[in-house]
Amino acid sequence: MLNDYKGLTHLKSMDIEQLRKLSDELREEIISCVSKNGGHLASSLGAVDIAIALHYVFNSPYDKIIWDVGHQAYAHKLLTGRDLSFLRSKNGVAGFPKPQESEHDQFVAGHAGVSVSQAAGLAKMYPGNFSIAVIGDGSMTSGMVYEAMNHAGSMGLGNLVVVLNDNEMSISKNVGAISSFVSKNIINSTYYQKVRAEIKSLLAAAPLQKTFNIDLVELVKKIRSSAVTLIAPEAFFEAFGFRYIGPIDGHDMEVLIKTFRNIPFGEKDPAPILLHLVTKKGKGYPYAEEDPSLFHGISCFNTKTGRSESKRTQQTFTSVFGETLTELACKDSKIVAVTAAMKEGTGLDIFEKTHKDRFYDVGIAEQHAVTFASALAKSGLKPVVAIYSTFMQRSIDQVFHDVALNNLHVVFCMDRAGLVGEDGSTHHGVFDISLLRCIPRLTIMSPSNAPELSAMMIYALEKCNGPVFIRYPRGCVPEWEHEDLVNKKHHEIKDNSSRLIFSNNAEKEHITIFGLGYSAYTCLEAVNQ
Amino acid sequence: MLNDYKGLTHLKSMDIEQLRKLSDELREEIISCVSKNGGHLASSLGAVDIAIALHYVFNSPYDKIIWDVGHQAYAHKLLTGRDLSFLRSKNGVAGFPKPQESEHDQFVAGHAGVSVSQAAGLAKMYPGNFSIAVIGDGSMTSGMVYEAMNHAGSMGLGNLVVVLNDNEMSISKNVGAISSFVSKNIINSTYYQKVRAEIKSLLAAAPLQKTFNIDLVELVKKIRSSAVTLIAPEAFFEAFGFRYIGPIDGHDMEVLIKTFRNIPFGEKDPAPILLHLVTKKGKGYPYAEEDPSLFHGISCFNTKTGRSESKRTQQTFTSVFGETLTELACKDSKIVAVTAAMKEGTGLDIFEKTHKDRFYDVGIAEQHAVTFASALAKSGLKPVVAIYSTFMQRSIDQVFHDVALNNLHVVFCMDRAGLVGEDGSTHHGVFDISLLRCIPRLTIMSPSNAPELSAMMIYALEKCNGPVFIRYPRGCVPEWEHEDLVNKKHHEIKDNSSRLIFSNNAEKEHITIFGLGYSAYTCLEAVNQ
Repeated sequence: MLNDYKGLTHLKSMDIEQLRKLSDELREEIISCVSKNGGHLASSLGAVDIAIALHYVFNSPYDKIIWDVGHQAYAHKLLTGRDLSFLRSKNGVAGFPKPQESEHDQFVAGHAGVSVSQAAGLAKMYPGNFSIAVIGDGSMTSGMVYEAMNHAGSMGLGNLVVVLNDNEMSISKNVGAISSFVSKNIINSTYYQKVRAEIKSLLAAAPLQKTFNIDLVELVKKIRSSAVTLIAPEAFFEAFGFRYIGPIDGHDMEVLIKTFRNIPFGEKDPAPILLHLVTKKGKGYPYAEEDPSLFHGISCFNTKTGRSESKRTQQTFTSVFGETLTELACKDSKIVAVTAAMKEGTGLDIFEKTHKDRFYDVGIAEQHAVTFASALAKSGLKPVVAIYSTFMQRSIDQVFHDVALNNLHVVFCMDRAGLVGEDGSTHHGVFDISLLRCIPRLTIMSPSNAPELSAMMIYALEKCNGPVFIRYPRGCVPEWEHEDLVNKKHHEIKDNSSRLIFSNNAEKEHITIFGLGYSAYTCLEAVNQ
Repeated sequence: MLNDYKGLTHLKSMDIEQLRKLSDELREEIISCVSKNGGHLASSLGAVDIAIALHYVFNSPYDKIIWDVGHQAYAHKLLTGRDLSFLRSKNGVAGFPKPQESEHDQFVAGHAGVSVSQAAGLAKMYPGNFSIAVIGDGSMTSGMVYEAMNHAGSMGLGNLVVVLNDNEMSISKNVGAISSFVSKNIINSTYYQKVRAEIKSLLAAAPLQKTFNIDLVELVKKIRSSAVTLIAPEAFFEAFGFRYIGPIDGHDMEVLIKTFRNIPFGEKDPAPILLHLVTKKGKGYPYAEEDPSLFHGISCFNTKTGRSESKRTQQTFTSVFGETLTELACKDSKIVAVTAAMKEGTGLDIFEKTHKDRFYDVGIAEQHAVTFASALAKSGLKPVVAIYSTFMQRSIDQVFHDVALNNLHVVFCMDRAGLVGEDGSTHHGVFDISLLRCIPRLTIMSPSNAPELSAMMIYALEKCNGPVFIRYPRGCVPEWEHEDLVNKKHHEIKDNSSRLIFSNNAEKEHITIFGLGYSAYTCLEAVNQ
């Protein structure tokens, strides 16, 4: 199917069986491309059927399809004519949506939770078309989604559809555990609206006691109570002014297409739709289904074994951070760790194994992570917040307002500082120093190698009593170590200090080269040349 | 009562009548002090009874009481021994909570939505005490509150209480409109929990048809449907793992005390509590009750007339912005305006009157405001986002990720840039240039006077096609205008340019003084000296 695929018009001519076959082939293609170039596998596999059904029913780019975070958009990229052979490589296709690549990508987007705001804006401006935000349950922990839903609901945007791609049930147990009988046929909104209005007035007008006999009153009471739990998702999203549809099997092509087709347009009493789809992360690739976390973002791997090809034995800054913190926490019971849904990425998975009760994963919620940590520090703990440099941009105000202004001892360890390579423009950690250096009371450090990272962490936790930031790059700590670096295994860190790595007094021309953190090695290379 | 008031121990010895009298006197004192020094009147008056009841029942500082935003905390300040005579003045009491003033203030806080994160952190660390966040319905539009609730609910913090001070019903109509019979006695949680479990299993175990006869099935269906609306607040907060209590009259001292006392502690199945209080903004001062928006943040006024004492006839940067934008929008239908709950403060109230359908107030939701505006720009509109400099700190990532990276033409007008005076440390707009200048593609400008602000707005809207930021201070545009400034009424703005205001070629010593924006006047003063 995929070899003969001729684009969206071709897609719309297929029958259900053909669509299902296409779905299987898209999965194979995605697995094959990601195994060669690395990428986001599990979530992209989970969203293949959604992508097909969306493009089958709606008319992109007139109808706007916006993929939150965008790492679930590989099937969308294939369906809209892109070749994933050189995924995430120079001159190849980007790992995230990119309007320069295709008119079917509305925005560059790699940070979580922005799609509902974007779709709301487009829905307002293109009232004759649907605007559709496809958002994972993980992104739903991001606060700005609620800001957007609150506003979109109040505007009554009947052409806005938020497709919740629920693959982990992580919003809350209630939303996930909802039994399927509850929400069937609610899509038939005329009936739904009518009954609601009727009963509302019935219950409001007369005291229950007068209308029903006593047994019924009890029954009504009990049902009302149980309903609190049972109808949670409906009531939840309706509080934001959304109409809820779901939960629906996000891999059942026939049901998906039917559901999308039945979404009402131009209703008398318009409200945005929240469509709740349940999917399986890694769907179709057993290794990824078993361990979706491992296959979330992954580098090259063997498709037959599901194992990584690279035999990395070197330490990374990430692993040094994780191991050092775990060790320090054994000696100091006040040390706790906070992550915003990046347990593996930041190296805190090691910490969690040893210190489970001192580990907090708050979801994709960097703002809360920082302020929550400030309160832990206020209580006398030593919180270490591990957030990627690019995602720290989400909590600049909390760093200022809740940490620095209150002068609290929170230690921030920012992984992925500097250029990150394949993930591209949305993920580079290039602004952290510029953004943070203007805020008073902050100590900012950057290690050039593994022992320096450990020493800085010790300094931050034992010698400092205000906010501290340590930034370090993605990837391995340098294999080659300059003589002067390796000799001093326990680097002493001092306030506002740097240290001399190399001095050639024989030279007449005095040239001084400054390096910050990892760039010290680039400087040493310059010296060698 | 207030003259003889001896602190919290004294408070706890009072009877209901005395508490009510104290409440009246606190209101009088607050009105009197704010009339002299300016401040946040309406919300502080609305929270007087809550403050009394909280301190009557709980034991601060062991129980932690955290006031979100903090401008509702004047009664709390008086009850904990502070003198408001020199409110918001040098060496006087701050307008926001300040730990340096009192052990009863947990954090410095003037930005919205942080209290739940803070209270969650303290609740975790002080399991033997209550942690109480008092938060207005306005702050509930801030995304990080949902991040915090999601996390707090998942931790099952039974000693965390979020007191929702609902004075405008602005979260959603459902939450506000809920009829009072619905939630009575839910505080009796044993009954509530038992019934819930019972019915849940009943409905889950057997198909409805087998359990009931057909009429009952219909009834159950209907009630379930209506319940979606009727029990919205319970279901809404329960989705975050909170137990909901309310709504309760936030001015009924007896009910308040009873409710606070009945909050369960150390339950078997602990969950944080959301206590929904309904209050009246400006309560007790008729002028403020009538126009709470005018009396939100106010400068000196005559308590008898409710009128401002200052006879300001001068233009402010705020009014110049509002008038210029309104005028420009008459000629250019693509101009729209976005505010994050600061319609009056930013001067957009004038705009709204003329261009109601092109005005968006998104709530205290700066992140969404920026991303929503980016989508409007993507659609070809010219959105102007008006946010105070200090609150722009909330959306640095959105400026980078959604506006700059997508190179969209959004114009930001940042009022309250620089030092703001009485509101103090949380509100100074001193970081904007530092935070924004590192982000590529941004044009940043700062006007020194009214005609320059207008000229920059025209330049931003007509000549630019990427992101533009214009920053200007609080307060009046300078009355005295230097000859060279007033002569050029229509300042031409050019890329990356400054202009020469004054040159004295007769001087031998050549000194060049640079001024940015408003500080040009300080430079001219220096020249004169």
